[in-house]
Amino acid sequence: MLTQDKQQRNWKPVIKALEAVLGKNGVVQRREELITYECDGLTSYRQRPALVVLPRTTEQVAEVVKICNKYSVPFLARGSGTGLSGGALPVEDSVLIVTSLMRQILNVDLDNQRIVVQPGVINSWVTQTVSGAGFYYAPDPSSQIICSIGGNVAENSGGVHCLKYGVTTNHVLGLKIVTAEGEIVDLGGQIPEMPGYDLTGIFVGSEGTLGIATEITLRILKSAESICVLLADFTSIEDAGATVSDIISAGIIPGGMEMMDNFSINAVEDVVATNCYPRDATAILLIEIDGLEVEVAGNKQRITEICHKNNARSVTSATDLETRLKLWKGRKAAFAAAGHLSPDYYVQDGVIPRTQLPYVLHEIRMLSEQYGYRIANVFHAGDGNLHPLILYDRSIPGALEQVEELGSKILKLCVKVGGSISGEHGIGQEKKCYMPEMFSATDLETMQWVRQVFNPKGLANPEKIFPTPRTCGEAANKATDKQFEGVERF
Amino acid sequence: MLTQDKQQRNWKPVIKALEAVLGKNGVVQRREELITYECDGLTSYRQRPALVVLPRTTEQVAEVVKICNKYSVPFLARGSGTGLSGGALPVEDSVLIVTSLMRQILNVDLDNQRIVVQPGVINSWVTQTVSGAGFYYAPDPSSQIICSIGGNVAENSGGVHCLKYGVTTNHVLGLKIVTAEGEIVDLGGQIPEMPGYDLTGIFVGSEGTLGIATEITLRILKSAESICVLLADFTSIEDAGATVSDIISAGIIPGGMEMMDNFSINAVEDVVATNCYPRDATAILLIEIDGLEVEVAGNKQRITEICHKNNARSVTSATDLETRLKLWKGRKAAFAAAGHLSPDYYVQDGVIPRTQLPYVLHEIRMLSEQYGYRIANVFHAGDGNLHPLILYDRSIPGALEQVEELGSKILKLCVKVGGSISGEHGIGQEKKCYMPEMFSATDLETMQWVRQVFNPKGLANPEKIFPTPRTCGEAANKATDKQFEGVERF
Repeated sequence: MLTQDKQQRNWKPVIKALEAVLGKNGVVQRREELITYECDGLTSYRQRPALVVLPRTTEQVAEVVKICNKYSVPFLARGSGTGLSGGALPVEDSVLIVTSLMRQILNVDLDNQRIVVQPGVINSWVTQTVSGAGFYYAPDPSSQIICSIGGNVAENSGGVHCLKYGVTTNHVLGLKIVTAEGEIVDLGGQIPEMPGYDLTGIFVGSEGTLGIATEITLRILKSAESICVLLADFTSIEDAGATVSDIISAGIIPGGMEMMDNFSINAVEDVVATNCYPRDATAILLIEIDGLEVEVAGNKQRITEICHKNNARSVTSATDLETRLKLWKGRKAAFAAAGHLSPDYYVQDGVIPRTQLPYVLHEIRMLSEQYGYRIANVFHAGDGNLHPLILYDRSIPGALEQVEELGSKILKLCVKVGGSISGEHGIGQEKKCYMPEMFSATDLETMQWVRQVFNPKGLANPEKIFPTPRTCGEAANKATDKQFEGVERF
Repeated sequence: MLTQDKQQRNWKPVIKALEAVLGKNGVVQRREELITYECDGLTSYRQRPALVVLPRTTEQVAEVVKICNKYSVPFLARGSGTGLSGGALPVEDSVLIVTSLMRQILNVDLDNQRIVVQPGVINSWVTQTVSGAGFYYAPDPSSQIICSIGGNVAENSGGVHCLKYGVTTNHVLGLKIVTAEGEIVDLGGQIPEMPGYDLTGIFVGSEGTLGIATEITLRILKSAESICVLLADFTSIEDAGATVSDIISAGIIPGGMEMMDNFSINAVEDVVATNCYPRDATAILLIEIDGLEVEVAGNKQRITEICHKNNARSVTSATDLETRLKLWKGRKAAFAAAGHLSPDYYVQDGVIPRTQLPYVLHEIRMLSEQYGYRIANVFHAGDGNLHPLILYDRSIPGALEQVEELGSKILKLCVKVGGSISGEHGIGQEKKCYMPEMFSATDLETMQWVRQVFNPKGLANPEKIFPTPRTCGEAANKATDKQFEGVERF
């Protein structure tokens, strides 16, 4: 049964062509089945796609994209739909290419520390596949048990361990992509530095606007001989922030270094009861050290000294797996815990220079008081990647708007101190209007030139990343209009 | 006095416009002064530029580029001219923009571990500037006491320490560039991961074909607490290669891991007499370990065990600066030493997966015997980045051609085993004809689309990276012609 939208557009030939490639089961068109796909992890925006398709191979993705081109239908890919900036939010009358049947591990090459996967493969499966041989895949978003590698590539996802090991782009050696016009192209290769332009680098984090990755070659790392997690307890945010700076300045790069404030600690203890976190601490740091046993022992001692020098009340540590998991459990459940405390929450994702931590946290506290919304701070302190969680109730008229305004002020604060409007969640739908805060008209123009190269008709994931006339300031309009006069706009 | 070429083109208005921006001293036009600039480190290609200009600021570079655009004059930048693939080789009737007066350190921000420099700043000056405060800049090409940061950015240069710390692109946080049309654009920023497309990543290594970097923000690292250099001595190349693989597989990433074969060892000892290298070894490994004292001690022990397990005859070590420098002296002088042993030498730069080391070294030995030229092997073993040095005498008719053919066979061998035609020297003029060995027509086409975006008139460093009809195979011709029908071809 076709929806009204579809009838207006005459979807029949499109559906017929898609079914010829994917079979009837590979094309979802019933309204009630499409509802599942009307948003990703950014639940405040919703848009039902016209159709969902379920390809299994690169060639099928290429055929689908060619059909979309033939009928001028916008399309975009979706992995597990856990993205937090609306990168996989459908646009009106679009075909959503869902990769959940593309879940094969295509090649494992332990000698050269590489693995080739399809985009629907779940992040944690990569580590599971190679852990028996003593390897792992480093980028670990909190959603790693459900998010897909394809989505990680699109959003250049981070995670707790990205402080030491870098984000997704540092672990993608090569890609097979389907371009916006349905051509199959190989980017990068099996070695880290290829000659020519770094097209792999530009593709990772491009949120589906340059094409769809259908085979991904990832770098896997040797598992550490020894791992230790430290929990340091502070009575002042400033002391915790100074500890983070001092550890890095001492030349130590921990595997991860996370901060939680008092509100987050109590939220987590209320909901998941780790019984590890001191409820009266103003802030705690969770610091994971990995490496050789001697190295871990040496770093543990030095970090403990730095914590105490910065007035930590206590520093506890764990090396056994069970206690380590317990220490991390609270941190990983922090977003979910916020969901238990409040009908709704809004997660922000901004980056600041580490040295600005105390100032920015103070300003966030002021904003929280000014707007009257509680804000929990849980974040990748080592990277300066903040995740303020604003708690609110959507059912109160005007609340969402106020919370969005508050979130926007936090982002502008990040930019003001030399940081960024996104650390690891991408720009997607949510943050495109902030792009002119960070980039000049010429910068945005240059990026859109590149988009134009890969995506000349604008059919691949339209309305993402770049501010459009509907939402953006004058600068961005000018950039877009100047370059693309006469070109169809998305 | 104008040369004949210049008169044909009527350079007078160009010179007048350039002098208005740079003064008379900023524009070099005398034939005898221009000779210095007719080649870079790839001395087998030579071409005198029409003019050399010496700007001091971003704005002056932008003005020069605008003048080149106005008169349709090709232009390119040159740092210290140490590049080994001819990236800074002038083209006929071009303006060469020499950055040797752009040598200011613009900003040092130790708290956030960043430094902003002009492109003419010499690589080793960066470390000198921050070493007093306990920091350093990691990428260290052998030419680091003379090569420029601008050139490093253009070629995405590597070095001994790039095994652990990554090549130039991993250390460039942001760039101010002058586009091919003379606009000033900021790419990236002060934090490692910016939202939007990774234009910084695509610019680094683009060899001047996308514009000219005029301000470069680099990441600086905290100097290691302790450094130890090991010298392991092997009677078989296979054993040395297996040691490299085993060290990496054990989860240890040394600061650097270099291999020299018997021929290189003796060449170095003949010329610079380190008196450290065993002349009867088939191969030696130089392994630098850095980190905390306990970490270095632990790694030293483990690496020594791995060397012995792989039949090393001896493993010696040094932690004091003087002996460490002595151990490295031979490696760093290896190219120069080859120059003493033979009237000419030809350095190749290819990458292979580490596991292919023994096979590829054996094949290189076979090729050496087949062609009758001695080949010294000195290379970044940890990265699989080979630098075979072919010794020959250019004055013997046909020798250069034979050596180029031999070099080409080595590169094709690298590609055959899943490697690359360039590790850290770039493509430039020398290797563009090999690009179709690594990339499909569609791949090359995609890269040239991107070039087209930044460099629509093709005036910025023309005839580099991409094979042109003069030199390339059919595949590349097709790619270029298909996309750029009607577009002026460089």
